[in-house]
Amino acid sequence: MPARIAVNGFGTIGKRVARAVKLQDDMELVGVTKTRPTYEASIANREGMPLYTLDEKQMKVMEEQGFRVEGVLQDLLTKVDLVVDCSPNGVGEENKKLYEEAGVKAIFQGGEEHGIAGLSFNAFSSYDLAQGRKWARVVSCNTTGLIRTLYPLDRMFKVEEAFAAIVRRGADPAEAKGSALNAVEPSLHLPTHHGTDVRTVLPGLNISTMAVKVPTTNMHVHCIHAKLRKKGVKTSDVLSLWDQMPRIRFVSGKHGIRTSGQIMEIARDLGRHSGDFAETIVWEDGTHIDGESLYYYQAVHQESDVIPENIDCIRSMMEMEKDASRSIRKTDRSLGIGK
Amino acid sequence: MPARIAVNGFGTIGKRVARAVKLQDDMELVGVTKTRPTYEASIANREGMPLYTLDEKQMKVMEEQGFRVEGVLQDLLTKVDLVVDCSPNGVGEENKKLYEEAGVKAIFQGGEEHGIAGLSFNAFSSYDLAQGRKWARVVSCNTTGLIRTLYPLDRMFKVEEAFAAIVRRGADPAEAKGSALNAVEPSLHLPTHHGTDVRTVLPGLNISTMAVKVPTTNMHVHCIHAKLRKKGVKTSDVLSLWDQMPRIRFVSGKHGIRTSGQIMEIARDLGRHSGDFAETIVWEDGTHIDGESLYYYQAVHQESDVIPENIDCIRSMMEMEKDASRSIRKTDRSLGIGK
Amino acid sequence: MPARIAVNGFGTIGKRVARAVKLQDDMELVGVTKTRPTYEASIANREGMPLYTLDEKQMKVMEEQGFRVEGVLQDLLTKVDLVVDCSPNGVGEENKKLYEEAGVKAIFQGGEEHGIAGLSFNAFSSYDLAQGRKWARVVSCNTTGLIRTLYPLDRMFKVEEAFAAIVRRGADPAEAKGSALNAVEPSLHLPTHHGTDVRTVLPGLNISTMAVKVPTTNMHVHCIHAKLRKKGVKTSDVLSLWDQMPRIRFVSGKHGIRTSGQIMEIARDLGRHSGDFAETIVWEDGTHIDGESLYYYQAVHQESDVIPENIDCIRSMMEMEKDASRSIRKTDRSLGIGK
Amino acid sequence: MPARIAVNGFGTIGKRVARAVKLQDDMELVGVTKTRPTYEASIANREGMPLYTLDEKQMKVMEEQGFRVEGVLQDLLTKVDLVVDCSPNGVGEENKKLYEEAGVKAIFQGGEEHGIAGLSFNAFSSYDLAQGRKWARVVSCNTTGLIRTLYPLDRMFKVEEAFAAIVRRGADPAEAKGSALNAVEPSLHLPTHHGTDVRTVLPGLNISTMAVKVPTTNMHVHCIHAKLRKKGVKTSDVLSLWDQMPRIRFVSGKHGIRTSGQIMEIARDLGRHSGDFAETIVWEDGTHIDGESLYYYQAVHQESDVIPENIDCIRSMMEMEKDASRSIRKTDRSLGIGK
Repeated sequence: MPARIAVNGFGTIGKRVARAVKLQDDMELVGVTKTRPTYEASIANREGMPLYTLDEKQMKVMEEQGFRVEGVLQDLLTKVDLVVDCSPNGVGEENKKLYEEAGVKAIFQGGEEHGIAGLSFNAFSSYDLAQGRKWARVVSCNTTGLIRTLYPLDRMFKVEEAFAAIVRRGADPAEAKGSALNAVEPSLHLPTHHGTDVRTVLPGLNISTMAVKVPTTNMHVHCIHAKLRKKGVKTSDVLSLWDQMPRIRFVSGKHGIRTSGQIMEIARDLGRHSGDFAETIVWEDGTHIDGESLYYYQAVHQESDVIPENIDCIRSMMEMEKDASRSIRKTDRSLGIGK
Repeated sequence: MPARIAVNGFGTIGKRVARAVKLQDDMELVGVTKTRPTYEASIANREGMPLYTLDEKQMKVMEEQGFRVEGVLQDLLTKVDLVVDCSPNGVGEENKKLYEEAGVKAIFQGGEEHGIAGLSFNAFSSYDLAQGRKWARVVSCNTTGLIRTLYPLDRMFKVEEAFAAIVRRGADPAEAKGSALNAVEPSLHLPTHHGTDVRTVLPGLNISTMAVKVPTTNMHVHCIHAKLRKKGVKTSDVLSLWDQMPRIRFVSGKHGIRTSGQIMEIARDLGRHSGDFAETIVWEDGTHIDGESLYYYQAVHQESDVIPENIDCIRSMMEMEKDASRSIRKTDRSLGIGK
Repeated sequence: MPARIAVNGFGTIGKRVARAVKLQDDMELVGVTKTRPTYEASIANREGMPLYTLDEKQMKVMEEQGFRVEGVLQDLLTKVDLVVDCSPNGVGEENKKLYEEAGVKAIFQGGEEHGIAGLSFNAFSSYDLAQGRKWARVVSCNTTGLIRTLYPLDRMFKVEEAFAAIVRRGADPAEAKGSALNAVEPSLHLPTHHGTDVRTVLPGLNISTMAVKVPTTNMHVHCIHAKLRKKGVKTSDVLSLWDQMPRIRFVSGKHGIRTSGQIMEIARDLGRHSGDFAETIVWEDGTHIDGESLYYYQAVHQESDVIPENIDCIRSMMEMEKDASRSIRKTDRSLGIGK
Repeated sequence: MPARIAVNGFGTIGKRVARAVKLQDDMELVGVTKTRPTYEASIANREGMPLYTLDEKQMKVMEEQGFRVEGVLQDLLTKVDLVVDCSPNGVGEENKKLYEEAGVKAIFQGGEEHGIAGLSFNAFSSYDLAQGRKWARVVSCNTTGLIRTLYPLDRMFKVEEAFAAIVRRGADPAEAKGSALNAVEPSLHLPTHHGTDVRTVLPGLNISTMAVKVPTTNMHVHCIHAKLRKKGVKTSDVLSLWDQMPRIRFVSGKHGIRTSGQIMEIARDLGRHSGDFAETIVWEDGTHIDGESLYYYQAVHQESDVIPENIDCIRSMMEMEKDASRSIRKTDRSLGIGK
């Protein structure tokens, strides 16, 4: 019997998780929630995803505007095994009570604190730890992107210390308000939370981060400086290591891919849904070792890189698959992720 | 037997035309050309489109870099009935000689002069005229967008006069160089060529245009002021008229779609390949009649709106379908275009 | 004795009006108001402008943070003849009561309704009407820009009808939040208020407008289509007319000035304070007559074009100068505006 | 007798150096060169700077278009002691021959290689070394910005190692073509030249750099991670050190200055010519020490931060002032630079 899944919150992440769940042969999307009769609610209806609201009042408003609504969250929770909470940052704590009452498992997103779940999840490093758990938290897009490349580096070559400068996109493509136009805005609270957040997944990693926001809508770009404890590692060794990992993909300036915009164009050409790119993208010729210092640039698609992680997290929490690699492979195949 | 089609030039428009041809059950994509071993050449190989170069030298360079190349343009031309010329602006005239020698029909794009083909094409207005022709020219994205809404207006209500201010995107998403950052650049040569170009398709239409370039990558937005000769036309009459036309789609600020970025998000949500939107998008609540004056905003996706026009143009030139509406319907169904 | 002036509200417009008042030999800046201990409050202190708050509480907060504060608005109003209200849009109506109680004249800005003052002001057309008045409203930057070129056109050649598509800057340079990044946002309520607002100054002018917002921080750009009743007017006639007017300045693509960014560079090179450009800037080679139709592009610096208008308005309301031209000349000389 | 100075090349840097020279009481601007009758040539005429061309042919073209031209470069070189070469990157080597023939000293800019002059200059660290020299090179804006904060850090606390991620503005405000719109472009050649360039001035400094280009026009922003050899240094120690240095200025997010756009607004409010900011701007609350690691953000105005360095370099090469601090103070006072 497939795992019965709800998605609570149907925005940028929620709609993608819902679509991904629908593509899994071992999961069933039982319903999604939306609070208002917006454009997004119409997507759920159009794509045949059973739509729920948070309360009766919202339901009435929705129905008056012609939306098909199946019921309220409370109803939905009685029908599922696990809920993926994709509600706005900070309301997860309140929601958790509802999930607890309903006796369903839940996955929270990176906008919530680590403490909400006690386990912060990345498929490479935390799959085994999530087996059978009641709560887990899939870390944010930037954190996920950093872990994807740093985890194998640390396993193979020991990372003495890492520093990342994170160049964040100012807003998502459909946001009505953007970041400051024609300006760069640093995250002044130092060091930024991104490094701390990596350590919720990889506690031993010595990493610090800084971040700036820039007026673009596509992809965060990371400038990473990592020191390797192992001596004599060559650039090609690092590239070979990453090449063996799923969810890391190379691009190269030599082949004309020099900007984050050109990376997104590859996703479009690959026919990926929504032009999404769930892999962490590393510039092959933007990776360089000088002595113990490794420098590399990577790009992370803020809307989609956590989606496969959510799917794997479900599979582990529901004890549907013991082996991380097999889950990752299954997820990636279903989503068209691959090299 | 399907029409045998070549696409000469495999860039932004060429790759889309090639993909669209592959989706037609009455056409066969025999090959595409590319001059250099770029990222785009690898798309052709990956998508199984037979790849040709312009000459032997290019072919050698390509093959040395590991590309599969089938031959040169001259070879390709011997195998096809019609070539869609998507080469860079201004080289069409030279190419025409080759097509003439090879005895193949050709479609040129809007970057070429009207004179190159003698017929400038839009599926609404020119389908019958293109039947069996040797040459035709599919007009540019802005011109196509203007014709889609103005042609039915003129037919039904007579357009006394039209004026459009065209707010052009500065560059395509993957371009390495953009327009001036943080600035608006008017097209100083007045009135701009867009109005003239509309008249290559609709000779009687009294239209003038101005244009500015702005630093965005998605969609041109048109501010249109049209005077209708017919008295008493209401806003709802105009919307009803457009609603009956294919390739016109409404959005509404009331449903939260207020920016061109949000329109593109709809295309992504619809799962359109590359996030493309081939329809002309009209703001339902940005359409207003005041006396004889009609005002409306529309948005045009510069990369894709001419693609279905190319397909219909092939069908008419190859005399595969006599009826415009049936061709349009067939094309749209194959490309997932619809309301 | 110089006119004693207060500026209520010390933001983008307020700080510029205050500086301009200080430069007049017939006016005295008695004080400015600020509600919070922000960066702008420190400008007032640094530039030696007596600083007031709206109430005692604010005053205390300011003083605790080390600002020099002279008193509250009520105190300030007892010391002045006229207050220029530069407070946020929509609070003018409340403020008007205070001004009335204090028996001071007031100028409101374009964010307020026409009705607040009964007279909407532009120095070209309304100087005489403002003589001795108690209330006036200086229209917004876009409206001011449109009137500057349309008023002389209408006087000399009679404007049968005008249409303007307004390409608005998304945010001011120092705003922390911008408009949608990488998107164009139309003003859906049609026709937009800009045309209506022009008619508060030029009641007989038949003008309609549309507007879009784009992600830039410098200058609105107008695409204007005007029909002239007078026959046989040539492009050179129009340019000659404008050339005689103050506060209209030409640029030319032929001299390399093709974008709004390059126009702002001229202001910087001229050494204008803040790189401001108070003139309406017309592209000489972006002006073109075709029959009765005049087409032209102009650019308006949203932060500064209303500043000289405020100064002239003060002078007329205070009956310090009967002749509009002489006031305009005096104002422009003081602000370094000229050809 | 004042030092007689020429500026060869009158673009973004050249026009600013020329204006700065004019403001010095111990220097005379004898002339500037421009090759074509552009908008910039008209600035030279307007500001009364004697204008020269590179050859007779250019001179004729200029004069035909109504420009006042005094002669050609060769003439100019006979009248000066020192030429500041602000010609486009890479032509300095050719120019050097002319300067050698004419027997004049020359300053080159950061676009040239270190080898052209043998001395790369920053006023803090290299003033004494430049005394009486024939050739020197003022390093680029990013390099200058890095040295301003790192030099005192290294002197006082010993910098064990530094890493900077440089977030570069995509184009200058008046450039007609910008960087990729809506995209981030990393400098793939690693480590980037910026670190190497710092070492042409501070040979012992262990610094590496990465860089990305973003679509903005104002200021580069640096994310810097420096390890200090001295133990127990506190954030306040670092801020105190910098506070004593000229050409370093603090801003604070607490006072509302959170973006590079807001920093530029301060320069505008200060009434700086062209809205320039020649100081290196450090975020006071974006500076943080954690153990041996210092993290800080700084912003560098790409058009102006090297201007005072050029003035000091002239003064040292001409042996007009022995003491670096006195020259710096004199320069800064003349340019309105100060805290």
